[in-house]
Amino acid sequence: MGKIILTAAITGSATFPSQSPYIPITPEHIADEAVEAWGAGAAVVHIHARDPQDGRPSASIDLYRQIVTSIKSRCDVIIGITTGAGAGMSIEQRTDTISTFEPELASLNMGSMNFSMHPLLKRIKEWKFDWEKPAVEGSRDFIFPNTFASLETITTIMKHHNTKPELEIYDTSHLYNAQYLAQEGYLEYPLHMQFVLGVMGGSQATGYDLIHLKTTADRLFGDRYTWSVIGTGWPHEFRMGAIALTLGGHVRVGLEDNLLIAKGELAKSNAELVHKMRRICEDLGKIPASSEEARTILKLKGIEKVAF
Amino acid sequence: MGKIILTAAITGSATFPSQSPYIPITPEHIADEAVEAWGAGAAVVHIHARDPQDGRPSASIDLYRQIVTSIKSRCDVIIGITTGAGAGMSIEQRTDTISTFEPELASLNMGSMNFSMHPLLKRIKEWKFDWEKPAVEGSRDFIFPNTFASLETITTIMKHHNTKPELEIYDTSHLYNAQYLAQEGYLEYPLHMQFVLGVMGGSQATGYDLIHLKTTADRLFGDRYTWSVIGTGWPHEFRMGAIALTLGGHVRVGLEDNLLIAKGELAKSNAELVHKMRRICEDLGKIPASSEEARTILKLKGIEKVAF
Amino acid sequence: MGKIILTAAITGSATFPSQSPYIPITPEHIADEAVEAWGAGAAVVHIHARDPQDGRPSASIDLYRQIVTSIKSRCDVIIGITTGAGAGMSIEQRTDTISTFEPELASLNMGSMNFSMHPLLKRIKEWKFDWEKPAVEGSRDFIFPNTFASLETITTIMKHHNTKPELEIYDTSHLYNAQYLAQEGYLEYPLHMQFVLGVMGGSQATGYDLIHLKTTADRLFGDRYTWSVIGTGWPHEFRMGAIALTLGGHVRVGLEDNLLIAKGELAKSNAELVHKMRRICEDLGKIPASSEEARTILKLKGIEKVAF
Amino acid sequence: MGKIILTAAITGSATFPSQSPYIPITPEHIADEAVEAWGAGAAVVHIHARDPQDGRPSASIDLYRQIVTSIKSRCDVIIGITTGAGAGMSIEQRTDTISTFEPELASLNMGSMNFSMHPLLKRIKEWKFDWEKPAVEGSRDFIFPNTFASLETITTIMKHHNTKPELEIYDTSHLYNAQYLAQEGYLEYPLHMQFVLGVMGGSQATGYDLIHLKTTADRLFGDRYTWSVIGTGWPHEFRMGAIALTLGGHVRVGLEDNLLIAKGELAKSNAELVHKMRRICEDLGKIPASSEEARTILKLKGIEKVAF
Repeated sequence: MGKIILTAAITGSATFPSQSPYIPITPEHIADEAVEAWGAGAAVVHIHARDPQDGRPSASIDLYRQIVTSIKSRCDVIIGITTGAGAGMSIEQRTDTISTFEPELASLNMGSMNFSMHPLLKRIKEWKFDWEKPAVEGSRDFIFPNTFASLETITTIMKHHNTKPELEIYDTSHLYNAQYLAQEGYLEYPLHMQFVLGVMGGSQATGYDLIHLKTTADRLFGDRYTWSVIGTGWPHEFRMGAIALTLGGHVRVGLEDNLLIAKGELAKSNAELVHKMRRICEDLGKIPASSEEARTILKLKGIEKVAF
Repeated sequence: MGKIILTAAITGSATFPSQSPYIPITPEHIADEAVEAWGAGAAVVHIHARDPQDGRPSASIDLYRQIVTSIKSRCDVIIGITTGAGAGMSIEQRTDTISTFEPELASLNMGSMNFSMHPLLKRIKEWKFDWEKPAVEGSRDFIFPNTFASLETITTIMKHHNTKPELEIYDTSHLYNAQYLAQEGYLEYPLHMQFVLGVMGGSQATGYDLIHLKTTADRLFGDRYTWSVIGTGWPHEFRMGAIALTLGGHVRVGLEDNLLIAKGELAKSNAELVHKMRRICEDLGKIPASSEEARTILKLKGIEKVAF
Repeated sequence: MGKIILTAAITGSATFPSQSPYIPITPEHIADEAVEAWGAGAAVVHIHARDPQDGRPSASIDLYRQIVTSIKSRCDVIIGITTGAGAGMSIEQRTDTISTFEPELASLNMGSMNFSMHPLLKRIKEWKFDWEKPAVEGSRDFIFPNTFASLETITTIMKHHNTKPELEIYDTSHLYNAQYLAQEGYLEYPLHMQFVLGVMGGSQATGYDLIHLKTTADRLFGDRYTWSVIGTGWPHEFRMGAIALTLGGHVRVGLEDNLLIAKGELAKSNAELVHKMRRICEDLGKIPASSEEARTILKLKGIEKVAF
Repeated sequence: MGKIILTAAITGSATFPSQSPYIPITPEHIADEAVEAWGAGAAVVHIHARDPQDGRPSASIDLYRQIVTSIKSRCDVIIGITTGAGAGMSIEQRTDTISTFEPELASLNMGSMNFSMHPLLKRIKEWKFDWEKPAVEGSRDFIFPNTFASLETITTIMKHHNTKPELEIYDTSHLYNAQYLAQEGYLEYPLHMQFVLGVMGGSQATGYDLIHLKTTADRLFGDRYTWSVIGTGWPHEFRMGAIALTLGGHVRVGLEDNLLIAKGELAKSNAELVHKMRRICEDLGKIPASSEEARTILKLKGIEKVAF
């Protein structure tokens, strides 16, 4: 049976404390959730920091340090750090974690796009923190900026620190952008890609979209890439995961992407989501890779080479 | 949550007693397995008869009668009867069950094709019955015959007895054949189709093939059809099922199509396969339809109108 | 034989005078080219204005007025006006032409994206005007901004002036954005879409991409839309056109999108490109629609209702 | 510009003299048409023989000899011979030409299927020869037989005579059949495939079907194959050709596949069809390969190694 890499995206920056009390916001909670997710079968954790007071996305190096050192002291999970961060952060802020921590893996969004959560305005009745509603409202006019110039800059930084980029692919054009960057030497093969399906502004969480991205990636890159899928929201997280694994892909779950464990029922932890996805994998004839196996599959530099 | 029709294909004609001791061959066993599968969540059972002595495919009306009356006496499951039958049977033999029992549902293969099991020759070491090896060897030179003339004949018979055809679709061309038959009035909308993936001679059990058939059916029939999937063999049965349900399709499992419950582990009953597929459905946000709900979805005439 | 709408995109804003001496830049030349393209078989002309001195993209209402009145005085071609305009223009500048001229048709880009021409830096040896090189260089860091808030604003303006939006679709996500806008009432069915293939930052000019957009649009909109294709550059303009017409689509050509009539040979006019595409259409069994026929196909308000 | 192989299928066996007076039936006329098609740009001619009295499909070695020797005496065109032949011929009859002439290329149909012309019964008002109507009527109940056993036999014969099989692919399953034969050593890489679109019983002549076969072949064979397309009937012959060449494929035209040069207008010769397809190729940026170039592309043994 093929091994499958489960990634847990612990908290993210595009979900809101008002949506679920289980979204971890303190560094301790984020680290605990990561370790627990690893225990449940996640080979990789994807990390964002939040302000421990009110949960707003944070670029604080200090917070990131607390999170990653805590996790690393307790397990060998692969730690991937976002460079997507939150609205309004500069390229410097988005890459500071790379230079500082030199992680094995870091996300990199492959193009500029609308990225909106404004339909949440109709769904959230009561706001827990005062930054939340303006953030949701602002997303209606928000562009997630990832110009070619930015991509060239960030990939150069990542290469310098030997951090493997996890290319976030929201649409077909992002694959072509990745092809351009690879042809120009900004990216090295094998690529690792995350197909992100379901964000408002990107492709949506359907089998059609997933198959199209997979087929296009095959056409552009042949066997020179590995990939994983994110389906945002329930039941998409599990459905896209189920399809991905039949196509040879890996799967990301977690409270960054989806807050529900079943219809109308909040997930109480990242581990709970990992556990469920693991059962689906096993039912469909795949078994989760360990972190060490995942390092081999993704061709990472190794945990001993990070700077934290 | 959308309701999903689980079909259990109890014994079929293209698996061999030498492959598994759990394949039911007597009418009693077939009926018991059907009732048990219904109890596990199957809304439809698909029925073939076999010779109770040695398990060879049989067209005996008497055997079919024992099976269907036994099932009907115990539950309200929808009984679908094969018209595919076994190699070498005439159109008359293949449709005799329709005229006799007037079932709610019956399978109808949508085109002629190679249909071979000969790679089994390398895998089966010991043959339980003497008809098996010649049957497997003969399949190398076998054509499953379903000419346009035959299809016109069989659909006319089905229409006369108000039996809904379940169109077995092994490839793109079968969809076009169905379109022709519908345009000529041999088939009535809404159609019900079974996408059969994994038979040697047909399309194979991949997400690519499944999506292609689904997309083509949408193009040809719009919303004038319902559909289900069969993935033959393990893990395809469960994988194709998982993808199908995300695309709005229904799912067939059963010992006709797949003998394993997990890698290298024989399924001990149809119910065991149904139970597992049911768990996958529920994990992916669908719940099984009851037989009555399935009748509504498939627009069947009702159990009170069968002739047994 | 089905009728096909040929659109000529006369000059655009993303090609550069240094690339071809045949790109029209004065209002007179732009209008003449439009009328000549109509004579060659174009039912629609897509209009941008340029500074008559140096060809830089212009938002001058006066220039647009010269162009559209000149064209309208000479033929009944459908005049579509850009709202894409040039880098750095505000929403007000981009929609001023709509409020002022109330055209039958105007383009509307369906999402934010990278839109770069920087590979031209390696190809253009000599620059004719001093604005060109900085514009090309700047595109490396350029985002074509079309946030959800902008799209809501522009569609509201268009609806107010009864100008039909021609939705510029560069990727799958743009189709989903259009679906959202239609669901929210910002767009009305039937939609008209232009699939733009080949821009750096968007989908590329392949049959795979074209079929994917077509299939996705069918899935999202059924028969509630019409569509056309742009393939940028030679031979893509003609190739994408040839595929589009077999799929029931319409075709845009013109010096905005492609400067070559054959390998290594500059097109001397828009009419020359229209003439060639017309021959391909006829060879493949389609004939060009007249402007009046195109109005019926696209359900436009009619030339008598424009404000110029 | 990439070179494209144009094949002319001179007369076939599934069109009827009643449909067009231009279908060549005598060996002289067939040979003349082949030479003329070569002159117009065809690198390959695909040959069937017909009874010179009434045009019925013939397996006569003598007729084939007259045709191929006449062609070879006048030009270096690649001569491909059918093994599809006519309804009711045995495997021996279908392969006799291979053993006798050892051609460079011969067709080989990759699976059993319905293959019907019966809708012609409504269209042909007057029958020229008495064999025609029964042949058309009979096709309603006809299966084109190509079992796995037959395919193994025919490929073995072809390999023995160093004749390259041109695999006729009518549907997805045929690609999987080819994969099986290649895996078992019956076929050698690189494969050469002809995608046949539009026969009643097979996939139809749409861009969707063509892209699906191409994508599936890429998935199964990577770059270990070359391919060409047939679209049967007008305008499909030209449309499928146009799409194929954008995807890197080659194109077959000819009176075997299509009798019209334009809507409602009979083609007067194969050369006329070749000439038109050539113009489309050139308009779309491709140029026809010579026969020698085609030999290199297809990796054929060379004209000096045939046995005629």
